[in-house]
Amino acid sequence: MKRVDALKQAAFEEKTFDGFAVFNWANLLYLSSASGAAALLIPKNGENTIYAYGVNYEQVKAEGKGFRVELVKRDENLMAKIAEKASACRITKLAVDALSVDGWRALAKASRGKAKLEGAGKILCELRKVKDAEEIALMQKAAELTSEGMKAASEVLRAGIREYEVAAEIEYAMRKHGSYGTAFDTAVASGARSAFPHGGCCDREIRQGDLVVVDVGATYKFYRSDMTRTFVVGQPSEKQEKLYGIVKSAHDEAFEAMKPSVKAGDVDAAARRIIEAAGYGECFVHGLGHGVGLEIHEPPTLNPSSKERLAAGNVVTDEPGIYIVGYGGVRIEDTVLVRENGAEKLTCGTYSLGAE
Amino acid sequence: MKRVDALKQAAFEEKTFDGFAVFNWANLLYLSSASGAAALLIPKNGENTIYAYGVNYEQVKAEGKGFRVELVKRDENLMAKIAEKASACRITKLAVDALSVDGWRALAKASRGKAKLEGAGKILCELRKVKDAEEIALMQKAAELTSEGMKAASEVLRAGIREYEVAAEIEYAMRKHGSYGTAFDTAVASGARSAFPHGGCCDREIRQGDLVVVDVGATYKFYRSDMTRTFVVGQPSEKQEKLYGIVKSAHDEAFEAMKPSVKAGDVDAAARRIIEAAGYGECFVHGLGHGVGLEIHEPPTLNPSSKERLAAGNVVTDEPGIYIVGYGGVRIEDTVLVRENGAEKLTCGTYSLGAE
Repeated sequence: MKRVDALKQAAFEEKTFDGFAVFNWANLLYLSSASGAAALLIPKNGENTIYAYGVNYEQVKAEGKGFRVELVKRDENLMAKIAEKASACRITKLAVDALSVDGWRALAKASRGKAKLEGAGKILCELRKVKDAEEIALMQKAAELTSEGMKAASEVLRAGIREYEVAAEIEYAMRKHGSYGTAFDTAVASGARSAFPHGGCCDREIRQGDLVVVDVGATYKFYRSDMTRTFVVGQPSEKQEKLYGIVKSAHDEAFEAMKPSVKAGDVDAAARRIIEAAGYGECFVHGLGHGVGLEIHEPPTLNPSSKERLAAGNVVTDEPGIYIVGYGGVRIEDTVLVRENGAEKLTCGTYSLGAE
Repeated sequence: MKRVDALKQAAFEEKTFDGFAVFNWANLLYLSSASGAAALLIPKNGENTIYAYGVNYEQVKAEGKGFRVELVKRDENLMAKIAEKASACRITKLAVDALSVDGWRALAKASRGKAKLEGAGKILCELRKVKDAEEIALMQKAAELTSEGMKAASEVLRAGIREYEVAAEIEYAMRKHGSYGTAFDTAVASGARSAFPHGGCCDREIRQGDLVVVDVGATYKFYRSDMTRTFVVGQPSEKQEKLYGIVKSAHDEAFEAMKPSVKAGDVDAAARRIIEAAGYGECFVHGLGHGVGLEIHEPPTLNPSSKERLAAGNVVTDEPGIYIVGYGGVRIEDTVLVRENGAEKLTCGTYSLGAE
């Protein structure tokens, strides 16, 4: 209940809400430990209630300790049930984390003006950005599993193997070590396809001399990790070595810059400066990184527009890249935990034409 | 462009829209073949335009043949760009497939009353419900790969193996045969956990006599499949055999009922009747099935409240189950293609205490 208490503090004491309705799956999991909940209502005065459909009701009851769990029958209206409960708890200003426009309208209609709805997803983002000790332990495990996947990739990559066959070995290694599944679709983007930052993987046969960008993540008890290494099959060319060197320097500089109170935009700039100085600024087509946790992309975001400051407990990626259309790409990525005195890489693995 | 033409027909001729803004990832993929698009604007009069951020811009240009692709720079406002284009194309009534409440408000604000927004996701649902020949071929392949995964599960299941180790073998087999990834988190729910329809998989060691519900899906070029079998490790008990027999009959009856023009609710009823007659009605805690395609859950839905009618080209699951809290569960599921003259199972596999 520590997380619910922190939410109540942030929403009811520091702000003037008197109820919080939660719908996003990751927020639900974060607050209740229950997977499969449809919604959670936290009133300032009243009982915290999870709403669950029949298909997940028993599982939510087993997992959501300390919450009242209410069954939503097939022909019942979830929003009407929430509005009714909000009214019973005399909620007048209801924070809502995230809803589709249809969901919002249904809840507003059911509330019939009794409770004023206001978007307040940011409050939960702020809480989730700073990982607690329990979360850090799970993310360390997810990162270990991810590093095992990358090790498998480095061992099987050769001319003639198909991209999806490499993905098979990566995912098998992660699973065998205890992964709960992939954190996102494994990418093994080879040859010219490596110039697509989200190239995924297909049935292409990898050839001698190819750049291969391998982007992989394991999940451990709902927590994710994210890691990229770039390989060359065979002897790297001078140009490949050069590109790799630039990206590696950018990656290292950004890592050095990661500490509490630093602006996320400045960390991006530390990497971008190096890539720009080398003449490849236009080829670094994305931000330096993003937060990771229950979701693979979550706050904080590290790009040139980021105004927010890093804080101890943030877990973010450091992933500069250079992408040359028709030629190929290089990216090096680790999942990094921001500590009081600097930063710590959670993912790790040194490979030839792969990062430290 | 056949799919875009069908959308224009449905939205601009059969209804009175003069523009369609698409945001849902699956709708974007369906219409444009491009992964990673941020939005697509289809004006009644004007050029179809995909909007893409820098990170995906080159890939979208390569994949989205026949569309104009517009780059959205980091500090540009996507909704403002769409509204500006809509205004230039003189759109007055803009259909929108799906948006968060924040996205909707931003687009409405940017449109400044020039174009009236209206939710019209249903038009795209109706199109996507009926799979064309190309989609059916991809779904047949996804189903084949899924069946390979289930075969692997049947071969490795034994007392002492952990749930995630079974998942490892399933996913490895699917990948090695050419899967593009899992269609959803593989479930290997054993023992009392098998009573949770969405039990997922964990590190539990499977024991002699356990019911094990294995729910698995492969993806092939973005198309998904879905299949469940229930196994017993060792000799099934009389009660396990009985439960299995009831679910198998329900599964078969529903399959027989699947044909064009039949109400989805009646197909659900065909299965539910059998489970209710056996005294387990309360234990069948979900609908009979759901559509499958680019998304793992999409229309049509087959449950007691479903009013819609099946049509040739629908691909749906047939997945009755009985779940007894504290004891275990049984579910049998196939992905089924509705044909003109009946139905065809796309997934297949016969196992002891496994279906058909």
